[in-house]
Amino acid sequence: MSLQPILGVIGVVLTILGIAMLVPAAVEAGARGPDGWVFAASAGFTLFFGVLLALGGRSSGVVRLSVRQTFVLTNAVWLCVAVFAALPLHLSSLHLSVADAAFEAMSGLTTTGSTVIVGLDQVPRGVLLWRGITQWLGGIGIIVMAMAVLPVLHVAGMSLFQSESSERSEKVLPHWAQIVRVTAQIYVALTALCATAYWALDMSGFDAVVHAMATLSTGGFGTSDSSFAIFQSPAIEWTGIVFMIAGGMPFVFYIQLVTHQREAALANSQVRSFLALLVLVCLILSAWLALTRGMAWHDALGLVSFNVVSVVTTTGFVSADYGQWGSFAVVAFFFLTFVGGCTGSTAGGIKIFHFQVLFAVARVQIRRLFHPHGVFVPRYGGKPIPDPVFVSVLSFLLLYVLSFAGFSLGLALFGLDLTTALSGAATALANVGPGLGDIIGPAGNFASLPDGAKWLLSLAMLMGRLELFTVLVLLAPSFWRA
Amino acid sequence: MSLQPILGVIGVVLTILGIAMLVPAAVEAGARGPDGWVFAASAGFTLFFGVLLALGGRSSGVVRLSVRQTFVLTNAVWLCVAVFAALPLHLSSLHLSVADAAFEAMSGLTTTGSTVIVGLDQVPRGVLLWRGITQWLGGIGIIVMAMAVLPVLHVAGMSLFQSESSERSEKVLPHWAQIVRVTAQIYVALTALCATAYWALDMSGFDAVVHAMATLSTGGFGTSDSSFAIFQSPAIEWTGIVFMIAGGMPFVFYIQLVTHQREAALANSQVRSFLALLVLVCLILSAWLALTRGMAWHDALGLVSFNVVSVVTTTGFVSADYGQWGSFAVVAFFFLTFVGGCTGSTAGGIKIFHFQVLFAVARVQIRRLFHPHGVFVPRYGGKPIPDPVFVSVLSFLLLYVLSFAGFSLGLALFGLDLTTALSGAATALANVGPGLGDIIGPAGNFASLPDGAKWLLSLAMLMGRLELFTVLVLLAPSFWRA
Repeated sequence: MSLQPILGVIGVVLTILGIAMLVPAAVEAGARGPDGWVFAASAGFTLFFGVLLALGGRSSGVVRLSVRQTFVLTNAVWLCVAVFAALPLHLSSLHLSVADAAFEAMSGLTTTGSTVIVGLDQVPRGVLLWRGITQWLGGIGIIVMAMAVLPVLHVAGMSLFQSESSERSEKVLPHWAQIVRVTAQIYVALTALCATAYWALDMSGFDAVVHAMATLSTGGFGTSDSSFAIFQSPAIEWTGIVFMIAGGMPFVFYIQLVTHQREAALANSQVRSFLALLVLVCLILSAWLALTRGMAWHDALGLVSFNVVSVVTTTGFVSADYGQWGSFAVVAFFFLTFVGGCTGSTAGGIKIFHFQVLFAVARVQIRRLFHPHGVFVPRYGGKPIPDPVFVSVLSFLLLYVLSFAGFSLGLALFGLDLTTALSGAATALANVGPGLGDIIGPAGNFASLPDGAKWLLSLAMLMGRLELFTVLVLLAPSFWRA
Repeated sequence: MSLQPILGVIGVVLTILGIAMLVPAAVEAGARGPDGWVFAASAGFTLFFGVLLALGGRSSGVVRLSVRQTFVLTNAVWLCVAVFAALPLHLSSLHLSVADAAFEAMSGLTTTGSTVIVGLDQVPRGVLLWRGITQWLGGIGIIVMAMAVLPVLHVAGMSLFQSESSERSEKVLPHWAQIVRVTAQIYVALTALCATAYWALDMSGFDAVVHAMATLSTGGFGTSDSSFAIFQSPAIEWTGIVFMIAGGMPFVFYIQLVTHQREAALANSQVRSFLALLVLVCLILSAWLALTRGMAWHDALGLVSFNVVSVVTTTGFVSADYGQWGSFAVVAFFFLTFVGGCTGSTAGGIKIFHFQVLFAVARVQIRRLFHPHGVFVPRYGGKPIPDPVFVSVLSFLLLYVLSFAGFSLGLALFGLDLTTALSGAATALANVGPGLGDIIGPAGNFASLPDGAKWLLSLAMLMGRLELFTVLVLLAPSFWRA
C-alpha cells in the first residue's frame, strides 16, 4: 500500500489546522494572555509538518486512492489532527498532562464536548477559543467526510442507500468539490447567524463566537464550568435549542433549500422523524418534571427542551443538573444518549436514519410472521430498502451495542462504577459530552478519571465519530494481508 | 378466528397443572403444613376449568391451527397457566398480594427465578415445592414450544435456519410427538440424576428435588434466602454448575446422543461456542477476583464459575454477593445478563445461536468494506445463512434492545433508580433472576418494589420467554384485522 498520497492529504489538513492555531495566538497576544507564544509555536510546528507532508505527498496527476488507502487515510487524518490539536493544550499555562490534552483535543475534534478542565471561567481566552475552533473544524470535517469519503467506503448505510437507490433523488449537486464548497458556506453562515443572535441577547462577543462554534458543530464546549446555566436566560437557551437542532439536521436539507429544491427538502423523512422525536420526548419529560417537581409548565418545557435537544443532537451543553430530576429522567437521558441526530449532520450517536431503517425492517419482520406467504418490503421515504442497506444498518447496531459493552467493561477495569462506566462509554461513543452520576454527570466533568479511562474514552469518541466500521476494519487481519 | 381449538389446548395444559398441584397438596398434608387445603382447593378449581375447557374444545377430527391462532394460543396458554399457578400462592399462608403472587408465578413458569418472598427458610414446604414445580414445568414447556410451536411460527431464527437449510441435518427425529416424548424422558432423567447427586452430597431429599427442578429448568428458585450460599459446599456448587450447563444446552444435542448420532452432536457449533464462552469468562473473572481481592485461585474459580454459569445459563442461583466484587465484575455481570444459553434449551436471554449469526454477519460486513467486489457469505456451522435468517436474528436483537430500553424507562417511572431499572429490565427479559444494586442485586430480592414495577417485570419475563416476537405480533393492528 503506497502511503505517499495519504501523507499528502494529512499535510494539507495539518496546514489548515496550523493556520487555525494562529487565531488563538492572536487573541492571546491581543489580550496579553499567558499562552500567546504557545499557540504561535504550535502553529509554526504544525505548519512545518503540514507543509512538509503536503509537498512530499504532492503528485503530478489526479490522485486515486484505493478503498484500503482511504480507510487508512481517514483514521490517520483524525489521529494526526488530534495529536497536533492537543499540542497547545499540553504546553499551555494549564499544564494539562498528555492524557488530558489528548482527551480534550479528541473531545473537541469529535465534537463530543466532554472536558477534563476544571475552572473554565479562569482559563486563558486563547485556550477557550482553541477548544471552540477544534469543535467547529471537527464539525465541518465530519460533514465533508460523510458526504465525500464515507460514500466511497460504503460505511454509512445512508450512502449505500443512495448509491443503490436508482432514483438518487438525494444526490443534489453534481460534484463533491462543489458540495463541499456549498456545505462550508452554509456552515459558516449558520455559525455567524448563531453568534449574532447570542451576541444580540447580551452574550459577550467572545462568548457568542465560542458558543456559536460549539453549537453548530453540536460540540458542547462552553466557557464556564456551569455551561449554559451561567447565562440564566431563556432567550439564549431557546436560541441554543434552535441552532443545536440546526446542527443536527442533515446538511443536504440546507443544500436542497438553497438550490431551490424546497419540496425535496420538506419531504425529507429523516428531518420529520427527528423533529417529531424531539417534540415528543420534550413533551413527555416536561410533563414528568411539571407533575413530579411542581414546576410551572413553561419553565419545565424550557429546561427540558434545552437539555433533551442538547443530548439528542449530541451537543452536550447543560442548562440544569438533570441528574436531579428523578429516576425516570435519568434513565431517559441514559437512553437518549444513544439516539443521535440526523445522518449527514454534525451530530453523532446511532442516528435517526438508522432507526428509521431498523423500524422499517422490524415492522416488516413482524408482519411476515402472521402472513407467512405475504410479500413485504421495508421502505424508506417510499423507496424499497435494498438488502445490503439493512444488513449494513443492522450490523452497525450490533457493533454499536458490542462496542458499548466493550468500552463499559474497559472503563470498569479502571475502577469506574456501573453508572459512570455505562454512561461514560455511551456518551463517548455517541459524541454527546456529559455522562450520568456524580462524577461525569451534567454537573461533573472527566478530570478525576484515571488516565487509562481517558485514553479509552478518547478511542471511543474516535470510533463513534468514524461510524465504528472505519476504525474496526483496521482490526481485521485480512485488511492488512490483502 | 375460531377460539374453540385454542380453549381446548388451554384446557389440556390446565389439567396437567391441576394434577401437578396435587403434589404440594400431598406434601403439605403429609407434613401437616398450613397450606394443604389451599393446594387441594386450587388443584380442584384448576382441574375443573381444565377439564371443562378440554371437553368443550374437543373436536372430532385432527385440529389444524392457523398461524394467527397459534400466536394467540401460545400467549393465552402462558397467561392462563400463570394465573392458575398464582392462585395457591395468593391463597397460601404467606398472604401474597395479587401482584406478588402473579410475579412469583410468572417468575417460576418463565424459569426466571426472581422472588418477592422474604424468609424462604420459614416458608411452608408445599409452597417451596410448588415454586420448584412451576419452574420445572416451565422448563419442559419452553423446550417443547421451541421444538414444536416456534418452528411453525418462524419466530426463532434457528428454526427458520433449519427450515431454509436444505440438508436439515438437525432434524433428528421424524415426528414432533416423538420428539416431545424423547425430550421429556431426557429432561426427567437429567433432573433425577441431578437430584440424586445433590442428595448424595448431603442435601436433604426435599432440597435435592426442589433444587434439581430449578437447576435443569435454569430457573433458580431455591429454598433459602441465601440461595446456594446456604450449603457452603464446593462439591454441591460444582454439581450445580454441571447441571446448570446441562439445562443451558440445546436438547437436540441430547437427542442426537441417545439416537446414536454422536458425531453430529459433538459437531454442534452452538454447544462449542457456549462452552468456550463460559470457560473464557470464568477464567477472566477468576483472574480479576484472585488478583484484586487476594483470593486463592481455586476459591476464585469456584465462586466465579458458579455465579457466571448461573447468570449465563439464566438460572439465577447465587453462591456469593458478586455485587461486592468490584466495578469490573459488576459491569461484567450486567452484560452477562443479556447473553443467555443455547437456543433449544431451557435458558433465556439473547442466546448463543443469535450471537453466532450476528458475528458471522458483522464479520462478512467488515470484509465487504475493504473488498467491495468480493463475494462473502456469512455461514453457520459451515452452511450459508439465508437472508431471512439473519434479518430475523438482527431484528430480534433490535427488538431486544428496544424492549430493554422500554422496560427500563417503565420501571424508572415507578421510581426505581438507574441501576435497579436497567438491571431489573435486563434480568426479567433474559429470565435470569437476580439484578444488580442494593435492592434487587444478588443479596436482595424483588419484595420491596412497587406493584406497578412487579407487573411490568412480569410482562418482561413473559416477553423474554416467548422470544419477544410472539408477544409483539399481538400489538400489530393488522394482526387483528386480517
